[in-house]
Amino acid sequence: MGAEEHTWSPELEAFHEEIERYYLGPLWAVIQGVITKEPATDAVPYLWKWSVIRERVLRSGELVTPERGGERRVIYLENPGLKAKGIPMAATRTLYAGIQLLLPGEVAPSHRHIQGAIRFILEGEKAYTTVEGEKVYMEKGDFILTPPWTWHDHGHEGTEPMMWMDGLDVPLLDRLKVSFFEPYPEDRHPVKYPPNYSALRYAGGMMRPVGARRGEGGYPSSLILYTWEQTQRALDRLSELEADPCDGYALEYINPNNGESADARIGSWIQKLAPGMHTQAHRHVSSAVYHVKEGRGYTVINGERFDWEAGDFFVVPPWAWHEHVNTGETEAYLFSINDRPVMEKLGLEREEAHPTGWQDVVRVFEPLR
Amino acid sequence: MGAEEHTWSPELEAFHEEIERYYLGPLWAVIQGVITKEPATDAVPYLWKWSVIRERVLRSGELVTPERGGERRVIYLENPGLKAKGIPMAATRTLYAGIQLLLPGEVAPSHRHIQGAIRFILEGEKAYTTVEGEKVYMEKGDFILTPPWTWHDHGHEGTEPMMWMDGLDVPLLDRLKVSFFEPYPEDRHPVKYPPNYSALRYAGGMMRPVGARRGEGGYPSSLILYTWEQTQRALDRLSELEADPCDGYALEYINPNNGESADARIGSWIQKLAPGMHTQAHRHVSSAVYHVKEGRGYTVINGERFDWEAGDFFVVPPWAWHEHVNTGETEAYLFSINDRPVMEKLGLEREEAHPTGWQDVVRVFEPLR
Amino acid sequence: MGAEEHTWSPELEAFHEEIERYYLGPLWAVIQGVITKEPATDAVPYLWKWSVIRERVLRSGELVTPERGGERRVIYLENPGLKAKGIPMAATRTLYAGIQLLLPGEVAPSHRHIQGAIRFILEGEKAYTTVEGEKVYMEKGDFILTPPWTWHDHGHEGTEPMMWMDGLDVPLLDRLKVSFFEPYPEDRHPVKYPPNYSALRYAGGMMRPVGARRGEGGYPSSLILYTWEQTQRALDRLSELEADPCDGYALEYINPNNGESADARIGSWIQKLAPGMHTQAHRHVSSAVYHVKEGRGYTVINGERFDWEAGDFFVVPPWAWHEHVNTGETEAYLFSINDRPVMEKLGLEREEAHPTGWQDVVRVFEPLR
Amino acid sequence: MGAEEHTWSPELEAFHEEIERYYLGPLWAVIQGVITKEPATDAVPYLWKWSVIRERVLRSGELVTPERGGERRVIYLENPGLKAKGIPMAATRTLYAGIQLLLPGEVAPSHRHIQGAIRFILEGEKAYTTVEGEKVYMEKGDFILTPPWTWHDHGHEGTEPMMWMDGLDVPLLDRLKVSFFEPYPEDRHPVKYPPNYSALRYAGGMMRPVGARRGEGGYPSSLILYTWEQTQRALDRLSELEADPCDGYALEYINPNNGESADARIGSWIQKLAPGMHTQAHRHVSSAVYHVKEGRGYTVINGERFDWEAGDFFVVPPWAWHEHVNTGETEAYLFSINDRPVMEKLGLEREEAHPTGWQDVVRVFEPLR
Repeated sequence: MGAEEHTWSPELEAFHEEIERYYLGPLWAVIQGVITKEPATDAVPYLWKWSVIRERVLRSGELVTPERGGERRVIYLENPGLKAKGIPMAATRTLYAGIQLLLPGEVAPSHRHIQGAIRFILEGEKAYTTVEGEKVYMEKGDFILTPPWTWHDHGHEGTEPMMWMDGLDVPLLDRLKVSFFEPYPEDRHPVKYPPNYSALRYAGGMMRPVGARRGEGGYPSSLILYTWEQTQRALDRLSELEADPCDGYALEYINPNNGESADARIGSWIQKLAPGMHTQAHRHVSSAVYHVKEGRGYTVINGERFDWEAGDFFVVPPWAWHEHVNTGETEAYLFSINDRPVMEKLGLEREEAHPTGWQDVVRVFEPLR
Repeated sequence: MGAEEHTWSPELEAFHEEIERYYLGPLWAVIQGVITKEPATDAVPYLWKWSVIRERVLRSGELVTPERGGERRVIYLENPGLKAKGIPMAATRTLYAGIQLLLPGEVAPSHRHIQGAIRFILEGEKAYTTVEGEKVYMEKGDFILTPPWTWHDHGHEGTEPMMWMDGLDVPLLDRLKVSFFEPYPEDRHPVKYPPNYSALRYAGGMMRPVGARRGEGGYPSSLILYTWEQTQRALDRLSELEADPCDGYALEYINPNNGESADARIGSWIQKLAPGMHTQAHRHVSSAVYHVKEGRGYTVINGERFDWEAGDFFVVPPWAWHEHVNTGETEAYLFSINDRPVMEKLGLEREEAHPTGWQDVVRVFEPLR
Repeated sequence: MGAEEHTWSPELEAFHEEIERYYLGPLWAVIQGVITKEPATDAVPYLWKWSVIRERVLRSGELVTPERGGERRVIYLENPGLKAKGIPMAATRTLYAGIQLLLPGEVAPSHRHIQGAIRFILEGEKAYTTVEGEKVYMEKGDFILTPPWTWHDHGHEGTEPMMWMDGLDVPLLDRLKVSFFEPYPEDRHPVKYPPNYSALRYAGGMMRPVGARRGEGGYPSSLILYTWEQTQRALDRLSELEADPCDGYALEYINPNNGESADARIGSWIQKLAPGMHTQAHRHVSSAVYHVKEGRGYTVINGERFDWEAGDFFVVPPWAWHEHVNTGETEAYLFSINDRPVMEKLGLEREEAHPTGWQDVVRVFEPLR
Repeated sequence: MGAEEHTWSPELEAFHEEIERYYLGPLWAVIQGVITKEPATDAVPYLWKWSVIRERVLRSGELVTPERGGERRVIYLENPGLKAKGIPMAATRTLYAGIQLLLPGEVAPSHRHIQGAIRFILEGEKAYTTVEGEKVYMEKGDFILTPPWTWHDHGHEGTEPMMWMDGLDVPLLDRLKVSFFEPYPEDRHPVKYPPNYSALRYAGGMMRPVGARRGEGGYPSSLILYTWEQTQRALDRLSELEADPCDGYALEYINPNNGESADARIGSWIQKLAPGMHTQAHRHVSSAVYHVKEGRGYTVINGERFDWEAGDFFVVPPWAWHEHVNTGETEAYLFSINDRPVMEKLGLEREEAHPTGWQDVVRVFEPLR
């Protein structure tokens, strides 16, 4: 509400103090800080260099193991604005993003949690995720789901370190304090299906196995693996057409059972920017964490320029103006997660185009190296 | 209801006659014929040979043109059971199937109708359908939608006759008498998009252009073209897994916006049967019209054996037991349309497995040749 | 399609005859009769006098009993247009309406069917309907549901003949030939709940028992009885406001679990017309059967005037212009059933206002007396 | 996750510190505090005495006015557990509850916000809320909605102070930092409808004005006012039946357009407990704020006994066992708001019955007086 400062009479000050002792509060004194005219986000735009992350993730492979207790060997992104407020494990107020390392021969033990999780594969091959008995092999660029409250473990049959991005709605559920977690009695959940079962079932894209209508609608008849091969083809064909002014060539991963986002609470997008492409600025209530899969360029967020290259991660906070530029000579690919499904289910999403199309750059972000 | 015969007293007979003069009827006398214990379908199982159809379709090319008035050059299937009852243009009580011929250089003029339509391409190349300004080129095995009340015309830029199967819900709408139709003022609707626009947008299968969420959810952002290349790949991967006992390797074409059937009222399936495969019998309220895309085999329907080969069409009426057998040395592909979406929306679908798994064949159908 | 007459060359005539022998049809020759520019309904507007019906319903009480075989003692309305085409038990192509008589001490035995049914009580008291073990007492003006595939029987503990209107979607399901019916092994289904159970649970209107969210969403936690007392109050309050131009003070009975129509396929409305009220004409694809609960007036349907008084029934066919006039000195109440839910679920409903607001009356209907 | 304490080697401690400088975090060190086995809520059960609140609310009437800047004269409840963590205006992590005072002749100026709001009237008469031009008069026990982003102001035409409970999802939206707020240019929004318009339209409960289907589905065709008269009748009839074991005679206010909760994000319930009634204990993820409308009794929450009487407020945090007892000689009525709709939309709700039916009381809460 109105940003004006109020000064209270001594009598009223005394009244405020008196009622506070009874765990009562005066609305008129605090309303402007809470019911704000626009989202008063405390998450800040930020960018992490892949070189910084990668070195430390590999180093963590020497120091810790993904065993019970620690559960997973992951280094996660902390939004400086939220860290300053004591909000843990948060890239935005709703989204968590981490980089997980699995070494050859290792197993990350089976567990399940009410938090949803997506994976986007960064490096390596021959590691797998098992989701409720479906073993899914992971290759670079693949997108993999572990839906809420499904048993899942990771294993590695290859010879090189495997790294992937984890995206979870841990901060959202921590805001609400509604976590549930359970370890599986054994390290690995039994495998019940052929490898890549759901991907074979849904390989045709807009076609669904008819058995799904006979109550086989749950896991694992849903789609767990969206391969990069499929994604690449989709982007290539889409980019024969005109790009979206604000998003370039942009696709969201969807659930073939209902046409909603692949994970019910975490939105996942892949965007391709042609060389030289400069998208128009817009903003929306939903926030996002981006990973640069390939390419080189920058994103302007609320007037600040964030230069990025392959591997980097950056955050677009709620209601922040943002526009993307590909400054390289090849296509740039941006993978991102967002909380749009939550905002839409709760009736809170809004979006608006920038009045002049593009922002003025008033500052250049200097990343830590 | 109970099948027992009633005889009425002369007094009651007189009463029945008396009230009939007032357009009143005695429920007790007719209820058993209308509220039956099980679906009392009057559509019969039937099979049409492709050689018979094809010859006549080509002959029609010499006799008629797809001009205003006739609108389209199509020969359609008439269910003998329904024809006997004076029900026109009906393969089943809800479904129409026809074979359309377009010759090089011809145009089937633009119109729209409230009936939904799907196409499955049988022969030829370089013809197209334009749907609300999206020009879609048609190749053998492609599946194409013209959703209800969308302007559409067909044209042919190739050199050979083009034939395809049309599937519409004309009989359903004729049962309800709720047709709307409108000719476009010109033969062709202006083209507004690049060729195969929607197929390029949705090429990735389980991925959707993000623009679709900005109110671009209508046509043409929906998917109009499902290519055979995509379908073939989907079937090949699905058939690395175990087949469905009743349906073999079976996929339904779906709408990426909501996970429902591609057309909101007409279900469309593609099935692959491996050599030697013999599916188990089941029955359901929904009825279907099958087209044999490739292969050789037979289907047992209510104890009667229908031998089929590539190009043939056959009908499975409501609540009829049916099982499929591939007797050839290569895969068989069956395309079909059904009224399952209507039955499900109206809460009328049921399905049951055959008590012994397979039927006894008591008769062999002799098709007209 | 275009209404022009075609004459075919002798060669083409011969071709038509030739293909018909193979159960094939020429689309160009028949399309105009089936894919029509507007609904080509064959149901006609019609009106039945209550005096005619009532006398015969009472007479039926002397001649037949509601026993197994006949199942129910009901006299139903036959649309003359549909009767002429051999379509049985049809007030419109989708809707059945009958008047049921139950005499003191009688039982109409328990059965269930896939057809949905509603009741609107005309005369009498102390009879009941039992729906899946919920015994509902019926009073004049009450609206009662027996949802599809629920066991139901009727009994009578009073001393006077009981009459009510039955509304079912028998014709719709007969068009589709998808009936299922089953008699209960005994005449009466055991009573499992206190009388008027669901009405007590939902007595507050826009409030729902919280248990309904614990999987108690099915029958009988749904609402079975909508009392006239409640209906009268709703109409009285609504009529403190401005009337709907086409429908007067009009309410639809709804399902508290989802806000849809009370029966999933049969819409049910109650309308109040103040003395002198003359509604504007409109038309819609959905059709309706009206019962005049109270009052005196007329309805103009496609230019024909149908005078009505308390007890009469009349039909408004699909896409027919209609407007209502109350010529009495007291309120008129019209109860009606319609197939709007079906048309909406199938994407077929349309509605339009009359271009000049009101029709010219070109004819006056003379009812049979 | 596992509750075991970890001690880290000096080398690992150094590593943790090193990566923190880059705004990176070690998942293994913090996961157990955030992905917990069960909801680790920091809201505490608490109870506020009406005598304490009322005195201060009346006193606030002498000290402040509901003008621009302060916007509303409200004293709100602060959960001591959340206050300790610096979470403002929060009864639970998602719900705000305040007591608003309006004096005769005053106006609380028109504004709108994305937060939803419900009112439950405590004292007074002849004040009103205007929602998007619909003026709703408020009487004791009435339940009133101001849906998200609707203009609303309050005014008072009576002679005595008016008090009501406000329930909003301010804390939820503050967790997400997604507020929008706008003051109306004038103090009062123009009145566009007759008084209590929507309540007159929906007076029949399970009946809906048919105009609502013609796109009149938005405000104000929704229901804004649920009167106590209607609520009382609903509870009285419901309590002729067996009570719910955990909730007594409990009803939720619902939206007649879709059968969901009246406000899309805030659930609202009314419960009646007969004298002597002692409900069984259960717990659920959703949390609630209760107001004792009438009666005397206690609620056991996680083993602690909270004695209550008319006017008191108390909080049941997420996943807390709770059971209610009416110790008075008359009925007790509990009004409450909850975040169940949010938990259900996000797939997070769970519920379980207490293993032994009832808790042991291990402590008695001493309220501040």
